[in-house]
Amino acid sequence: MKNITNIPYYLKSNDIKPSFQRMKIFDYLYKNKNHPTVEMIYKELSGIIPTLSKTTIYNTLKLFVKKNIVIIVNIEDNETRYDADVSTHGHFKCIKCKEIYDFLFDTENLKIQNLKGFQKDKIDLYIKGICKECLFSG
Amino acid sequence: MKNITNIPYYLKSNDIKPSFQRMKIFDYLYKNKNHPTVEMIYKELSGIIPTLSKTTIYNTLKLFVKKNIVIIVNIEDNETRYDADVSTHGHFKCIKCKEIYDFLFDTENLKIQNLKGFQKDKIDLYIKGICKECLFSG
Repeated sequence: MKNITNIPYYLKSNDIKPSFQRMKIFDYLYKNKNHPTVEMIYKELSGIIPTLSKTTIYNTLKLFVKKNIVIIVNIEDNETRYDADVSTHGHFKCIKCKEIYDFLFDTENLKIQNLKGFQKDKIDLYIKGICKECLFSG
Repeated sequence: MKNITNIPYYLKSNDIKPSFQRMKIFDYLYKNKNHPTVEMIYKELSGIIPTLSKTTIYNTLKLFVKKNIVIIVNIEDNETRYDADVSTHGHFKCIKCKEIYDFLFDTENLKIQNLKGFQKDKIDLYIKGICKECLFSG
């Protein structure tokens, strides 16, 4: 993913006012790369920012998604996760350890039938299974 | 997808007691292939089955998913859709007409990096864009 050294500048260049809370939330997403839920971000940041609410996190993420600097990861139907890596890549979820892994795939060689003449804007590839570590540890 | 001629038999063979409501819900999913939400099924079937509730539909679908005769389509984060076609296929959502189209893709030639040694059980491919009809109608 893109190397971002100056978060306030990055937010501003994407037409987002860089408030303290917004910078902290983006910084968390960018540094952890753990595809967190609102709940996970709240748990992590509420100690540092006592005034932070889940609603603020939710609204901030909604704004980030609207401005295309964060994508939603919908690998499970009962949880919405967020990712600051907006480049095309896939997500693998291990059904044992619940970890989500990023992976790259070749969109050029994706052999798709029945969509001739369709305009394809966004591709999401989700795979579920068991990660290497869990396979080895039995 | 599989050709199912006898729904009660199909449900029974998948370890599901074929109640009238379950048969009607599966029949709707199988015949319409429109990837409906709970809401859409309720709108369509509550006229025929006045005792039907959204909770019953939700619980029935949950059972169908558990028994692997229905899959969840998570193409949007704010709606859960259901599909009686459990064969591997992709879903395309047109952002103009909101229609969801099925498509086939070649899972054998899917060039994936960074997942060597991972056990891949389930692949979901979602594409968003504009369908041919909407492109032509401007």
